[in-house]
Amino acid sequence: MKVKTKKDYIASLKDQEVVIYYKGERVGDRTTHPAFVPHINSAAKTYELALQPEHEDLLTATSHITGNKINRFTHIHQSVDDLIKKVQMLRVIAHETASCFQRCVGFDALNSLYITTFEIDEKHGTDYFTRFRNYLEKIQEENFMLVGGMTDPKGDRSKRPSQQVDPDLFTHVVEKRDEGIVIRGAKAHQTGAVNSHEIMIVPTQNMMEGDEEYAVAAAIPLSAKGVTMIFGRQTNEERKLECGIDAGNSEFGMVGGEALVVFDDVFVPWERVFMCGEIDFTGVLVERFATLHRQNYGGCKGGVSDIVIGASALAAQYQGTLNASHIKDKLVEMLHLAETVYAGSVACSAMGSKTKSGAYYPDPLLANCTKQNITRFIYEISRLAHDIGGGILATLPFDTDLKHPEIGKYVEKYLKGVEGVSTETRIKVLRLLENMTGGTALIESMHGAGSPQSQRVMYQRLGKLGEKMKMAKKVAKADE
Amino acid sequence: MKVKTKKDYIASLKDQEVVIYYKGERVGDRTTHPAFVPHINSAAKTYELALQPEHEDLLTATSHITGNKINRFTHIHQSVDDLIKKVQMLRVIAHETASCFQRCVGFDALNSLYITTFEIDEKHGTDYFTRFRNYLEKIQEENFMLVGGMTDPKGDRSKRPSQQVDPDLFTHVVEKRDEGIVIRGAKAHQTGAVNSHEIMIVPTQNMMEGDEEYAVAAAIPLSAKGVTMIFGRQTNEERKLECGIDAGNSEFGMVGGEALVVFDDVFVPWERVFMCGEIDFTGVLVERFATLHRQNYGGCKGGVSDIVIGASALAAQYQGTLNASHIKDKLVEMLHLAETVYAGSVACSAMGSKTKSGAYYPDPLLANCTKQNITRFIYEISRLAHDIGGGILATLPFDTDLKHPEIGKYVEKYLKGVEGVSTETRIKVLRLLENMTGGTALIESMHGAGSPQSQRVMYQRLGKLGEKMKMAKKVAKADE
Amino acid sequence: MKVKTKKDYIASLKDQEVVIYYKGERVGDRTTHPAFVPHINSAAKTYELALQPEHEDLLTATSHITGNKINRFTHIHQSVDDLIKKVQMLRVIAHETASCFQRCVGFDALNSLYITTFEIDEKHGTDYFTRFRNYLEKIQEENFMLVGGMTDPKGDRSKRPSQQVDPDLFTHVVEKRDEGIVIRGAKAHQTGAVNSHEIMIVPTQNMMEGDEEYAVAAAIPLSAKGVTMIFGRQTNEERKLECGIDAGNSEFGMVGGEALVVFDDVFVPWERVFMCGEIDFTGVLVERFATLHRQNYGGCKGGVSDIVIGASALAAQYQGTLNASHIKDKLVEMLHLAETVYAGSVACSAMGSKTKSGAYYPDPLLANCTKQNITRFIYEISRLAHDIGGGILATLPFDTDLKHPEIGKYVEKYLKGVEGVSTETRIKVLRLLENMTGGTALIESMHGAGSPQSQRVMYQRLGKLGEKMKMAKKVAKADE
Amino acid sequence: MKVKTKKDYIASLKDQEVVIYYKGERVGDRTTHPAFVPHINSAAKTYELALQPEHEDLLTATSHITGNKINRFTHIHQSVDDLIKKVQMLRVIAHETASCFQRCVGFDALNSLYITTFEIDEKHGTDYFTRFRNYLEKIQEENFMLVGGMTDPKGDRSKRPSQQVDPDLFTHVVEKRDEGIVIRGAKAHQTGAVNSHEIMIVPTQNMMEGDEEYAVAAAIPLSAKGVTMIFGRQTNEERKLECGIDAGNSEFGMVGGEALVVFDDVFVPWERVFMCGEIDFTGVLVERFATLHRQNYGGCKGGVSDIVIGASALAAQYQGTLNASHIKDKLVEMLHLAETVYAGSVACSAMGSKTKSGAYYPDPLLANCTKQNITRFIYEISRLAHDIGGGILATLPFDTDLKHPEIGKYVEKYLKGVEGVSTETRIKVLRLLENMTGGTALIESMHGAGSPQSQRVMYQRLGKLGEKMKMAKKVAKADE
Repeated sequence: MKVKTKKDYIASLKDQEVVIYYKGERVGDRTTHPAFVPHINSAAKTYELALQPEHEDLLTATSHITGNKINRFTHIHQSVDDLIKKVQMLRVIAHETASCFQRCVGFDALNSLYITTFEIDEKHGTDYFTRFRNYLEKIQEENFMLVGGMTDPKGDRSKRPSQQVDPDLFTHVVEKRDEGIVIRGAKAHQTGAVNSHEIMIVPTQNMMEGDEEYAVAAAIPLSAKGVTMIFGRQTNEERKLECGIDAGNSEFGMVGGEALVVFDDVFVPWERVFMCGEIDFTGVLVERFATLHRQNYGGCKGGVSDIVIGASALAAQYQGTLNASHIKDKLVEMLHLAETVYAGSVACSAMGSKTKSGAYYPDPLLANCTKQNITRFIYEISRLAHDIGGGILATLPFDTDLKHPEIGKYVEKYLKGVEGVSTETRIKVLRLLENMTGGTALIESMHGAGSPQSQRVMYQRLGKLGEKMKMAKKVAKADE
Repeated sequence: MKVKTKKDYIASLKDQEVVIYYKGERVGDRTTHPAFVPHINSAAKTYELALQPEHEDLLTATSHITGNKINRFTHIHQSVDDLIKKVQMLRVIAHETASCFQRCVGFDALNSLYITTFEIDEKHGTDYFTRFRNYLEKIQEENFMLVGGMTDPKGDRSKRPSQQVDPDLFTHVVEKRDEGIVIRGAKAHQTGAVNSHEIMIVPTQNMMEGDEEYAVAAAIPLSAKGVTMIFGRQTNEERKLECGIDAGNSEFGMVGGEALVVFDDVFVPWERVFMCGEIDFTGVLVERFATLHRQNYGGCKGGVSDIVIGASALAAQYQGTLNASHIKDKLVEMLHLAETVYAGSVACSAMGSKTKSGAYYPDPLLANCTKQNITRFIYEISRLAHDIGGGILATLPFDTDLKHPEIGKYVEKYLKGVEGVSTETRIKVLRLLENMTGGTALIESMHGAGSPQSQRVMYQRLGKLGEKMKMAKKVAKADE
Repeated sequence: MKVKTKKDYIASLKDQEVVIYYKGERVGDRTTHPAFVPHINSAAKTYELALQPEHEDLLTATSHITGNKINRFTHIHQSVDDLIKKVQMLRVIAHETASCFQRCVGFDALNSLYITTFEIDEKHGTDYFTRFRNYLEKIQEENFMLVGGMTDPKGDRSKRPSQQVDPDLFTHVVEKRDEGIVIRGAKAHQTGAVNSHEIMIVPTQNMMEGDEEYAVAAAIPLSAKGVTMIFGRQTNEERKLECGIDAGNSEFGMVGGEALVVFDDVFVPWERVFMCGEIDFTGVLVERFATLHRQNYGGCKGGVSDIVIGASALAAQYQGTLNASHIKDKLVEMLHLAETVYAGSVACSAMGSKTKSGAYYPDPLLANCTKQNITRFIYEISRLAHDIGGGILATLPFDTDLKHPEIGKYVEKYLKGVEGVSTETRIKVLRLLENMTGGTALIESMHGAGSPQSQRVMYQRLGKLGEKMKMAKKVAKADE
Repeated sequence: MKVKTKKDYIASLKDQEVVIYYKGERVGDRTTHPAFVPHINSAAKTYELALQPEHEDLLTATSHITGNKINRFTHIHQSVDDLIKKVQMLRVIAHETASCFQRCVGFDALNSLYITTFEIDEKHGTDYFTRFRNYLEKIQEENFMLVGGMTDPKGDRSKRPSQQVDPDLFTHVVEKRDEGIVIRGAKAHQTGAVNSHEIMIVPTQNMMEGDEEYAVAAAIPLSAKGVTMIFGRQTNEERKLECGIDAGNSEFGMVGGEALVVFDDVFVPWERVFMCGEIDFTGVLVERFATLHRQNYGGCKGGVSDIVIGASALAAQYQGTLNASHIKDKLVEMLHLAETVYAGSVACSAMGSKTKSGAYYPDPLLANCTKQNITRFIYEISRLAHDIGGGILATLPFDTDLKHPEIGKYVEKYLKGVEGVSTETRIKVLRLLENMTGGTALIESMHGAGSPQSQRVMYQRLGKLGEKMKMAKKVAKADE
């Protein structure tokens, strides 16, 4: 692993020249921009914890290619145990960052392509798998951070890619050359883009005849010519620029940091292309990616929820209500919801199985189950956090009021809770709660790894309704 | 009505010299400060619509004191019809502002004091009711906007007012003089404070022996010496200062605008004091205020929800998903939740009854029912809005990116939805949705008019469990 | 009112010769059959309470035709107050019976036909309204109990009436004669049929061209030649035949008593026909009937829920858990859900309006809102009742075990709860809970007055989504 | 395994002379009584499937004591894989029976005692573990079915065992003799009691000083002198006696069959006593038993839910609504809820760990999580089944009506659904749905393996709230 420490990680980001816009301005050094530093700190934890003996087992693995020790985020799952460790790892890191650490999307892209390129080759006689293994080995060696570039803008969703008025609303190949291909389009909502090294693009949905140019998977350095990243606006994102306590989580991000990544005729050499036109494998690739990504949510959001629960309990303690029976019951409910989502991630891992490629793959129905629950329970956990935290969550004065020479004393005096806890401490905890339960944080839980309806579609496909009808018929003795 | 138009309203605010802090700075002219203008615009609607013939019936009333036409927000309910019109009025105004218009708290304070001062006098031989009528007449004449100042900071909630280490954590009388009283303390989360004329303080909870000094109700001009307002921070509040489309609702506020209102030894003459030491009426006053305020939520939040529903449908239309069956079903669910909360407000009004004072009063159990549902359904409506709106709600670029000479074209191109709708229009609707379904908006629905548990306590008191046990015994023939 | 007392009611039922089957056997005297007595007792309460001074105001009204005092169940609503009293009346009767009293379906059929026949005549120049008024006057005079016969069997629901393989799966006119018409078909799930005097059939859904023969409304005495009633099986229905405490509610029914009413070429004279072929009024008639019927559910089920709540509290008291905080909180939740459904019924009544016929009609959107909540909250109330009641609800021994000479002592000893309450009393209350929260009781709440989806369809039609989209556009300044 | 086949099982039950009462009468041959046959058929599946090659892996195991092949229901879990196979086995059997097969309670009693007796000996120097192993070896050899006798009647729940007016309301030791002990008391809600061979009693809750005599665990043959079983009444239980299609599930039970098992001074020799007075191990034993039992619910109830889902889909198909989008969505929701509970069972198994005794034990927090979800989701699944099934579920005529020479034709004709499916087939499926979603079935899901509150208490103990508060403090930088 070349990039080992947080320092290495930041240095390697600095080495790349990338085009990023934030609030209408081109960003100079992404590693020191106050809007990006929290995200870098979050992602850096995936490097830092790997170096800590107590977390080594979860955060590192042995490469099945080289036998070397690698960061687990670049590993191909070799067993059910690997799948379970992935989930445990995510919860542990979330306990440190209380936010998205942004590295699992690339991780999942690697695993889904590993499985699928093997199968494409098997059917089409292509050599994507070898290419991909070579690429993978390099990533493991470098220990690079990847964005998993799946979501296309999609334009009018009632239309297929090739039916859109603007053909670029789905990312596609606009030219094939001897040395490589030229890509045009964009990937939206790209978590961790501004602090990653490369993006691995994959198709956003099942492609049909006529959509061949949209069936493309490829690895692109974010410093490639023609790549522009436009950072999205998050809830209360400007508080980070203030560097005060109002950011809530001053060190780490709120959720992930998402960018619109535009590909304005970007050239990709063939050795970095892992699918090009094989529409018959787009559906299965999307399903693999989605399953591997949905597997995660009970891990990371379970861990994030643990912090919301802890902060809620602190907020109650600080205002003297922690022993009220209704508060205790609400905390129990939050614990229950967090364990329910975690159980889903563990279960789909435990029921995982070996694919033809040798890589292990979680049970897809249970992975979808996990994500579907996330889209409900994170909202409910947040609702309960607001209930416990109180109206003060919505009306706290500014950090500058607290520190103001004249009125600071009022804020200090009137927002004091129980004895022994300073007003500033109380505000910090409330700001953390606010940070973790608001707009972006909720919406990311809803739509990350696919909208709720996408999981329901999987239930229709994988739910074995026909078998269940047969079993019911037998019990009812309703066979004729 | 002296203050008739929006212009009058703004002029009258300008006339008052008030002490307001925003982000650590003393605000000069509150009527032009970009953080306050949206709130002023919202509250101004209560003046503007009263002048429109189609809304006159709902927004005005005839004073039972003077027989003059007055703004309904200064009216004492004279019938069940008045109670129902209140609710209808709130929904209508919310349709215009899509946010809190901040004038009902003062309205409810007036009505609860009208009822209660009558009863205090009856028992204690005081003359609060006459004083109050005189004050009311003036308010009706001036058509002033009042803050209803109920919520004290409360410090350690496991302790009563007189048990707190700092006796000022509940607002109290620190001195009685011949001409009046001196008040010290603060009122937290004061909706509409910075754009109101006066604050009507009332006790925050039932007071017991030893807490007499905390049993105080009084009307205080916000320009009174010793009053300091510190404006609270809202979700994404700084976007308002940008004056771009990212604010979501550029003209009006998001929710209310809340302030911490500090009383640093404020003198109040006796004619403005409406309770002073009568602890035996604190409980009932709080209950009246709460009931009258909880009555509102199905009106205003029902109206606000209508806009969230409309915006969700627009968002779906703009991305081509409005006809998907799951989208239609989610919109139906939102409609259903909005009507359920509205039904509560209508029902508690329809079941209202006349008090000894002659004023009408909503059914308290049904009013609590309404508010309890709000604390759940607004979250569910927001969750569904996020579901329909899509991940883009959380990752939209900045307004300045859209308008940027170089990258504006990318935003324009890649965030385009269906034909015939510009990217800017789409973004505006998404930003409105974001604005209405995030942190502050949710928390205000949870805790405004009392935390969920406060409604549940009322169920324990008003739910007639004993009677229901008797009826069940009779049916079960379980009487012995 | 000819039929005044319970005695009159029973005598009048005895006077009619009807064909009823119960468990494969023709029933001789329906008024003494142990399966029907509880239902007769329930319905009789609509007669008995009308004679009690304290309930007279709710249970009687003044006929707008004759000016005579009539039973409210035969009244045409003349005001909003009438609409509200209807709801209050339903809750009061439910407190006595803890079950369906079966007379509102006919009541709603009368009101919906009154409104609709007026409008049919206005358009088609027919004279249904006069016929109907004459019929109504007679019913008011006799004080008869009517079944509201709406639901057809429907066969294959993906097909319209005239597309069914068997044309009789929707009730239709098979012959028109000078003196009247001949009806064939059946009405399913007919609540109160076996203890009513007449059935008022109406179309089950909107009819389209080609379905004319299915557009028929008519009043048919249940003793008419060709009418056969087949009583449906209810949950634990045989316990009623035992006449012991295991029936749960020994005196009254569980839910309604439903029958399949078959019309095997039944002749109906023209003066009893109120629609015959006017397909353009089928949709509106169905909507009226449904609205008037959905209005009820917060009244009657609210009242029934009150008994479930009371019984749950008793069950807790008898086992010493009533003061546990989680039990108290569950009871509060049940109270809250009951008030929420009641609020819906009150609200749609309060927002009712006058139709062209002069009759008042509840707000249809809010009536649908009420019923939709019923389909969820009765289940939740039952779930909480089971939670509080304990596993014993599902494993109680037989009445005959309790009274057994040898093992009675074991039951007595080991099912004893707190001191001062006999085991028998405890069992009675638990059996009542079991009776009210099981299969039939739940399913009736789900499907009575229309399946959940039928209310959702109404939201799509009445929810004014377009207006809400316009309002949202305006606020977002998204008009182009 | 001596008892191998269903025939062996029945014969072995016949061999035992037991005292059972059903509906106030002493039962002669329990193996032919129509109320018990369905339960015997259900339990027999645990024998039958073990003989089928395709199920052998799940239903059998290798004894760690003898190395012999044994029925898994008598096995001590030797690995995480064993824990997962337990869950898979439960789902598979439920697919056959659509009801409780009653053998897991004894299974869990064995495992919890295996773990706990080891630890008692370690602390107290007793020899319970050896005794227990000997007993276990015999049970494995015989392949007997055990009841897990935990739940005491408890009387007044606000009082401890020794505080009850009647000391027998908790099962206790009334005499110690040289050869053994004498037991008095009762165990309530004993699933499978009437068709088991032995009962293993264990304490019902944590015992404190003064409650020593209540700290008793022992194995008692159900034929022991002084044991009386009184069978509980289930929803619609008498339909089983009719032997027609109305029973819903004609071959198997509805839920389990529960009995009150009375111990009227029953003598137990010491070799069958596994705890006697060690109050310090009562809490841990209860927790082990509860965890092992709560682990099951996602397996068996997940499997039962699969049948409810299948039957709901059939019901829709038979009435022509299976393709309606709202029906499909409801089926998806049911699938999702079933997988969520299954995921819980898998997850607690996958996270299981080795105890000192060598036996494996599921993660207790996740096991409690599973059961908590069961208490909600089975209700929701049933609600959706009712929604899909329609009102007909509550009003179906009797089997004897369908087969009646005169009116059978009406039932046949009017309850017909789509072409190609007979009315009888349709009714059978609807009766199955009714059977599986009614009173007893729901209540058993609520209270089996402990009431909802008992799981919440475990969250308070195992939820690590303190750790979460510390982690939140760290992120918020709120350490002082």
